[in-house]
Amino acid sequence: MSEEDRFAPSEQVLSGRTADIYFLNARRILEQEGLNLRVTMEIFPSRSGILCGMNEVKSILAPVLPPDSEVWAVSEGESMEGKEVVLRISGPYRAFGIYETAILGILAQESGWASGARACVDAAGEIPVIHFGARHVHPDVSARLEYAAMVGGCTGCATQAGADLAGISPSGTIPHALILCIGDTVRATEAFDRYIDPQVKRIALVDTFRDEAEESLRVARALGDRLWGVRLDTPAERGRVTPELVQEVRARLDQAGFSHVRIVVSGGINASRITLFREKNAPVDAFGVGSAISGAPPIDFTADIKEIEGRPIAKRGRIPGVTVNSRLIRII
Amino acid sequence: MSEEDRFAPSEQVLSGRTADIYFLNARRILEQEGLNLRVTMEIFPSRSGILCGMNEVKSILAPVLPPDSEVWAVSEGESMEGKEVVLRISGPYRAFGIYETAILGILAQESGWASGARACVDAAGEIPVIHFGARHVHPDVSARLEYAAMVGGCTGCATQAGADLAGISPSGTIPHALILCIGDTVRATEAFDRYIDPQVKRIALVDTFRDEAEESLRVARALGDRLWGVRLDTPAERGRVTPELVQEVRARLDQAGFSHVRIVVSGGINASRITLFREKNAPVDAFGVGSAISGAPPIDFTADIKEIEGRPIAKRGRIPGVTVNSRLIRII
Amino acid sequence: MSEEDRFAPSEQVLSGRTADIYFLNARRILEQEGLNLRVTMEIFPSRSGILCGMNEVKSILAPVLPPDSEVWAVSEGESMEGKEVVLRISGPYRAFGIYETAILGILAQESGWASGARACVDAAGEIPVIHFGARHVHPDVSARLEYAAMVGGCTGCATQAGADLAGISPSGTIPHALILCIGDTVRATEAFDRYIDPQVKRIALVDTFRDEAEESLRVARALGDRLWGVRLDTPAERGRVTPELVQEVRARLDQAGFSHVRIVVSGGINASRITLFREKNAPVDAFGVGSAISGAPPIDFTADIKEIEGRPIAKRGRIPGVTVNSRLIRII
Amino acid sequence: MSEEDRFAPSEQVLSGRTADIYFLNARRILEQEGLNLRVTMEIFPSRSGILCGMNEVKSILAPVLPPDSEVWAVSEGESMEGKEVVLRISGPYRAFGIYETAILGILAQESGWASGARACVDAAGEIPVIHFGARHVHPDVSARLEYAAMVGGCTGCATQAGADLAGISPSGTIPHALILCIGDTVRATEAFDRYIDPQVKRIALVDTFRDEAEESLRVARALGDRLWGVRLDTPAERGRVTPELVQEVRARLDQAGFSHVRIVVSGGINASRITLFREKNAPVDAFGVGSAISGAPPIDFTADIKEIEGRPIAKRGRIPGVTVNSRLIRII
Amino acid sequence: MSEEDRFAPSEQVLSGRTADIYFLNARRILEQEGLNLRVTMEIFPSRSGILCGMNEVKSILAPVLPPDSEVWAVSEGESMEGKEVVLRISGPYRAFGIYETAILGILAQESGWASGARACVDAAGEIPVIHFGARHVHPDVSARLEYAAMVGGCTGCATQAGADLAGISPSGTIPHALILCIGDTVRATEAFDRYIDPQVKRIALVDTFRDEAEESLRVARALGDRLWGVRLDTPAERGRVTPELVQEVRARLDQAGFSHVRIVVSGGINASRITLFREKNAPVDAFGVGSAISGAPPIDFTADIKEIEGRPIAKRGRIPGVTVNSRLIRII
Amino acid sequence: MSEEDRFAPSEQVLSGRTADIYFLNARRILEQEGLNLRVTMEIFPSRSGILCGMNEVKSILAPVLPPDSEVWAVSEGESMEGKEVVLRISGPYRAFGIYETAILGILAQESGWASGARACVDAAGEIPVIHFGARHVHPDVSARLEYAAMVGGCTGCATQAGADLAGISPSGTIPHALILCIGDTVRATEAFDRYIDPQVKRIALVDTFRDEAEESLRVARALGDRLWGVRLDTPAERGRVTPELVQEVRARLDQAGFSHVRIVVSGGINASRITLFREKNAPVDAFGVGSAISGAPPIDFTADIKEIEGRPIAKRGRIPGVTVNSRLIRII
Repeated sequence: MSEEDRFAPSEQVLSGRTADIYFLNARRILEQEGLNLRVTMEIFPSRSGILCGMNEVKSILAPVLPPDSEVWAVSEGESMEGKEVVLRISGPYRAFGIYETAILGILAQESGWASGARACVDAAGEIPVIHFGARHVHPDVSARLEYAAMVGGCTGCATQAGADLAGISPSGTIPHALILCIGDTVRATEAFDRYIDPQVKRIALVDTFRDEAEESLRVARALGDRLWGVRLDTPAERGRVTPELVQEVRARLDQAGFSHVRIVVSGGINASRITLFREKNAPVDAFGVGSAISGAPPIDFTADIKEIEGRPIAKRGRIPGVTVNSRLIRII
Repeated sequence: MSEEDRFAPSEQVLSGRTADIYFLNARRILEQEGLNLRVTMEIFPSRSGILCGMNEVKSILAPVLPPDSEVWAVSEGESMEGKEVVLRISGPYRAFGIYETAILGILAQESGWASGARACVDAAGEIPVIHFGARHVHPDVSARLEYAAMVGGCTGCATQAGADLAGISPSGTIPHALILCIGDTVRATEAFDRYIDPQVKRIALVDTFRDEAEESLRVARALGDRLWGVRLDTPAERGRVTPELVQEVRARLDQAGFSHVRIVVSGGINASRITLFREKNAPVDAFGVGSAISGAPPIDFTADIKEIEGRPIAKRGRIPGVTVNSRLIRII
Repeated sequence: MSEEDRFAPSEQVLSGRTADIYFLNARRILEQEGLNLRVTMEIFPSRSGILCGMNEVKSILAPVLPPDSEVWAVSEGESMEGKEVVLRISGPYRAFGIYETAILGILAQESGWASGARACVDAAGEIPVIHFGARHVHPDVSARLEYAAMVGGCTGCATQAGADLAGISPSGTIPHALILCIGDTVRATEAFDRYIDPQVKRIALVDTFRDEAEESLRVARALGDRLWGVRLDTPAERGRVTPELVQEVRARLDQAGFSHVRIVVSGGINASRITLFREKNAPVDAFGVGSAISGAPPIDFTADIKEIEGRPIAKRGRIPGVTVNSRLIRII
Repeated sequence: MSEEDRFAPSEQVLSGRTADIYFLNARRILEQEGLNLRVTMEIFPSRSGILCGMNEVKSILAPVLPPDSEVWAVSEGESMEGKEVVLRISGPYRAFGIYETAILGILAQESGWASGARACVDAAGEIPVIHFGARHVHPDVSARLEYAAMVGGCTGCATQAGADLAGISPSGTIPHALILCIGDTVRATEAFDRYIDPQVKRIALVDTFRDEAEESLRVARALGDRLWGVRLDTPAERGRVTPELVQEVRARLDQAGFSHVRIVVSGGINASRITLFREKNAPVDAFGVGSAISGAPPIDFTADIKEIEGRPIAKRGRIPGVTVNSRLIRII
Repeated sequence: MSEEDRFAPSEQVLSGRTADIYFLNARRILEQEGLNLRVTMEIFPSRSGILCGMNEVKSILAPVLPPDSEVWAVSEGESMEGKEVVLRISGPYRAFGIYETAILGILAQESGWASGARACVDAAGEIPVIHFGARHVHPDVSARLEYAAMVGGCTGCATQAGADLAGISPSGTIPHALILCIGDTVRATEAFDRYIDPQVKRIALVDTFRDEAEESLRVARALGDRLWGVRLDTPAERGRVTPELVQEVRARLDQAGFSHVRIVVSGGINASRITLFREKNAPVDAFGVGSAISGAPPIDFTADIKEIEGRPIAKRGRIPGVTVNSRLIRII
Repeated sequence: MSEEDRFAPSEQVLSGRTADIYFLNARRILEQEGLNLRVTMEIFPSRSGILCGMNEVKSILAPVLPPDSEVWAVSEGESMEGKEVVLRISGPYRAFGIYETAILGILAQESGWASGARACVDAAGEIPVIHFGARHVHPDVSARLEYAAMVGGCTGCATQAGADLAGISPSGTIPHALILCIGDTVRATEAFDRYIDPQVKRIALVDTFRDEAEESLRVARALGDRLWGVRLDTPAERGRVTPELVQEVRARLDQAGFSHVRIVVSGGINASRITLFREKNAPVDAFGVGSAISGAPPIDFTADIKEIEGRPIAKRGRIPGVTVNSRLIRII
């Protein structure tokens, strides 16, 4: 999928139906007044984080800006400071003014998610973090969430749409639903092993019916070398997954000769819990993270007009004129 | 727009491309095993709030469930308790299992937004709250955000797409950009008055170039009775809008004979700041709220299988069997 | 066992070997000086709580005080205020002065334990509390601990020595050790049922090898009506016993027709956790409490001379003369 | 006194009357079942501290274990980490299982006391700490408390029974009672000087009737070189002993030529108050500490079966098999 | 002393030498411009408290304002709200503008002190509070401090200058210096009794050389009925005066037949310590308070021009025009 | 003005009318008893700070002490520790005893103010701090406050009387009153420029009628090079002066070619706000500080008699005899 295709804006966006109505009114007034001013607008975040969404922003601006316009930007995935100018657009205001709502929104939500992911990834150090949070956001943006999680440093995600956007294959284990339908963890895992593409890792979910340590040994005995790992997802009602549980399952697997079986931990995992697991040296092989990423708050962005027809200008409270930032690279 | 049209799911959702991949794998395994079990699934939120998204959920389930299925739900816009069952689906698992990701995601994000809006609306009492937060989320979900804000009690929103979904007309004032392009607040407001449909309220933005009190009097003198109100949006660098500023602008407008001019307050407004304005009896006529609603965290939802082929069942940590909740109404 | 026998002081105490040496020196000096003054001493606690140990104090004083002495006391098991006089001894100082150390120590430790027990009992309301804390104190005082726990309101304790002192039979379930030796919870419970006096309640411990809910159903099926209850004692590494676990075990037992089987909860239980269980309406039938009682800090007591030969006197910081307290009853 | 005599267990302990009843039941069941398994049990504390009571534990196990048993332990008085294995017993379970209650209890209470003492001793640095807390515990364990305080680093204690256990002579000054009976601090100190063995240090208590500084000078003038020191024990009602009081008494004694007279401080002393005295350079020569040691909470210990007949085993939540700890030394 | 004499402003004030220089510059510019505008100025405090200094302000304004001027004020000693207008001056600005500095300063410092006094007086309820804080402020304002303390509700003060201003006689006991010079508390009190006017109350200071309780009994025995009371002023190094000390001194005086001797408490007394004494029912007959009153922070006042030549006006941030306050009374 | 003239004590002080009455009584008793003892008194502060007032204390003592007296002191403006002896007076007690009240009061209030000033000056680093707080204290001490502020490190003050005491010329800008009377900031500044001595800096106050940035440019254009600076004094109702406002005004002045115009910041400035401005690199050229200095609490001082007729002595709680402090210099 080409970069343009990946982030092609929808008709709703291009038509201005998702723009704040007053931008459409402003465009109409300027047209009526015959004003087609060349304006430089700068965009900055309210706080520091990981910048995400810039590729998509480019996909909006590229088709609408006339040839003598310029767009400068900090690159996708880089870290940014609060109030740092990360995007500068120079061109006829009537050509791009109505896209302010969409541009700010894309950057806000995707940078928020990428920053949430980065916090978990930083806490996890060498241990990979897989994103499982699609179920906490609207399906119309879940692929963007998965993409942002990957930009933030995650190594896997769970939906086909998200994986396509990020250019990888989706990851998954076994849902509780399958085990409940089949009635036994071992039989469900065996069925998975029977029908699913051998390329897909066999990762058994081991907390549905019995104690996790007991179930881990049962599936390890059943699948042997074909078992890639087990996933611990103990619910809060059973005390969630603790570092001690991981240590015990590891010890029992090792004592039974299954040292090749990896341990994936999920269920309410966030950066502070990851830190706890690492401080206690719990032998985790991968973390599955959901709401700590999907629920990360948007990083609000602001757009300021800083120059009109070459003259520095700004509203009260802002400093007129272009802001110097050597990290900006011309993208259009 | 009919209810079905409003919330018709996208092809991405219907095809399962936004589903967690393991649900697709599970469906395939059950097919291979020849298991087509009738399952009852219950869905509940992690914490209390305002339920939103149920109409959209119905739009997904209606076309995919076979005739002898049943769906029971708490109604759109009602308040719900943490762990209260708000949705129960009974039917062949293979028909609806892959939509768990989408259903949970819709409810999570829209209920989060509606609950954020409700907190502001409750704080504001009689004073209307208008939603301006589209710029803080991705444009592919901004209409859902605006809809959820209206479900939560807001009386207006800013985008055409959002307003259509909520069945109203969009609201807007004048952006700083227009005033900067025209070069003066009074002239910009006069231009607005000249070209925009007289049905639209004239609300001048009064903090761009000069002190708010001074500018309020200038626009009031220029537009006279045609001026519906002024909007105070003082930036943080100038101390934000304070209750004292509202009181002073009110007093200066009244002393000059402009008691018909209303005062709209925006800029970093949230429930606790609204409470502050009301405690100090600041004469605010409307609040414009953005990130306090758009940045409200999702309310995560969980789906549990509670019955298979009529037998109570549950994973460890959950109580087997159907949960009684008299607030559930059959919707399919 | 008669009251005197129950609390007969040891030879170590009577001989003064457990007294602070300066009391022995003081007695010797007064003898050498030929001073045999009649002294009134008052004893009070540093903070409020449940008074315990007074019967034992009486057993020390009765044999050593000459006939014209008087002892007044608040009764065993009553609540007392901080600084309230709970014991007043009038008699020749040389006859009782060396027992100050023992008297204060008995009251301090036993009142501390009784107060710790009372806090749990008050939190538990109608639900019985059984004391299991002997393992946290030296065996030479564990019977006193168990007695104090009963004075504080517990309904059972675990050692023969303690039960004898309190005039009841000891309580017990099944230790993890037995289950580990026999290798299975059901077989261990069946062995218990086979060999132990039918008068003793059959209470299965259900967290040794498998999930508690699963194991509870297995033992219920094996013993049927002979099973009095199950004990949940989940270790911290598995998240301790939670209110939700109790609710689920209760539901699963009831759904399987075992509503006669009671649920005993143990493991790190204290007053605040008992409150939590009750606030969440967890259907607990009895709590087993250990270190919340055995580790309750002593309530320090102080003895003051207030009268010598009928004259009010006191050291600096105390008010001379006898303190009025109508709750004092003459016991010697 | 030989080591065995010092810590010989009582008949109550040896007979199992202080054991939790379920251990006696378990032994009976194993006998009936004809199971006499060789078991390895490990014992560890819940938190870090000073290990105390191991000598006494050895006195229990030595007479009851058959020849081919083994006991490994960390040594009396060493510091230990939370969850560190400090004792490992291997032998026929039926021979030692019933002593679990006594073993855990001895270690819990004595380690708690030794750790409380160590905190004060560490705070005091070079300044000796003398234990005076017998009055806050039951006389049947007060000698153990005094022994544990010495293991924790105290240099003196107050009862004959405790001193015997620790292998020293008891320490003591003069009680308020003697001064009240004699009616004057100087006369009481002179009487002490007249009748008590000259080996015993003359330490006057100086807060009974008059200001401490005034009284210190009076006793110093009366006893001259025979006065070893004064004890400040100001009650809370008079503001307790403060660093400034010690400095002033020191200055007044020195100015009057009594620089040989030492100052002992007592009354509500704990580690944080000792630190305060040292931070303010108060010239204290010894601290007397009571409830900060006697009221130190027990450090709960846990016993786990880790091997049966050579096979690793453990209950849920614990790691099967013997734990490596190079600090363990074979004691039986 | 007449009201005018009491508060007659100094030459420094009248000449403008204590005025902020820019007010003198402003007057000169207005003179040069020939502007002699009639101005209404309003003065309000930054926070609530007791208004003090208004009589003195009147003494400044009365001689300088021309006949057609008006001054309205809230009365001396009344409580005031934060931002409440307590003074309104209407007249030619050039006549009074330079006194803004002095007027605000007088109100600020005296209202601060009066409010500090009121907090103590309110806490003390029926018990009188005597002000002793002259030693904590410059002698050129100490009489104003004492006056303000009386306005705040104190019943006595310590300097002749302050007492004259308040229209009473000064109060005093005996300083430590006299006792140290004479060498004994009883002899010093007897000397006081010998030479000082019998109208003056005999109040012995009892903490100089010996314990307070002991010394109280000694002076009571020496002066008998002539002793009005004792003053407890224990230094921090001796634990300050505690409620328990007061109770004990009271008890010992009563037991010795000196129930007529009153107890005055001083030394670091403030509102929260007064509350403590009263909560513990300490039988205090009077409190001596110093730095809690003298160190009370000034309540800053602000002056705003609200009308010029009859037209409402105000600087940004303030509401133009006269503020209604029915508590204002015309004083000039 | 000579040093003596500057700080000559008033008749009120010299006559003892500002002394606590009990010092006058004590002097009379000692006269009657014929005691004229040579006494050494030491004076120390309750906490650390900047010593101020010592020159004035010397002006009191010099005329009253007889020739063989000695006075030793730490020097004006030096820092001092809590409880450090900063003044020692040796001489006949009757000659100086009654001045204790005045001496302590002068040191207390002036040291408090100097210490408050120093905190701001230390926070400001290289940026000058000008004192404007006369309006928050009584005019009879405002010159002392201004002097103390200069001792604490301020570089300017606002009243003639204060400036005389400190030996400088007073500083001032333009009051809001002048601008309100003249009706426009630019016209008021031009009038100032017309009539006031050209030596005086032209500093325009720019927040009276319009936005600060707009007004700064207007006055800069009007006065050109004659404008020394602008003062920002934004009221709390308009958000106070923020670091961002300073940065914006600086940028707008520079962009318009007025880089010579300095920026003075005032309005609720204290040490922590100064720190904030500096942390954010706000280009402030001077700070105007008022209540952070004038409202600094007095540092209470205490006087102790330490020697009488060559013998060490002290009241209870203090150490008898002279305290060594090598920083004391003989001043009389």
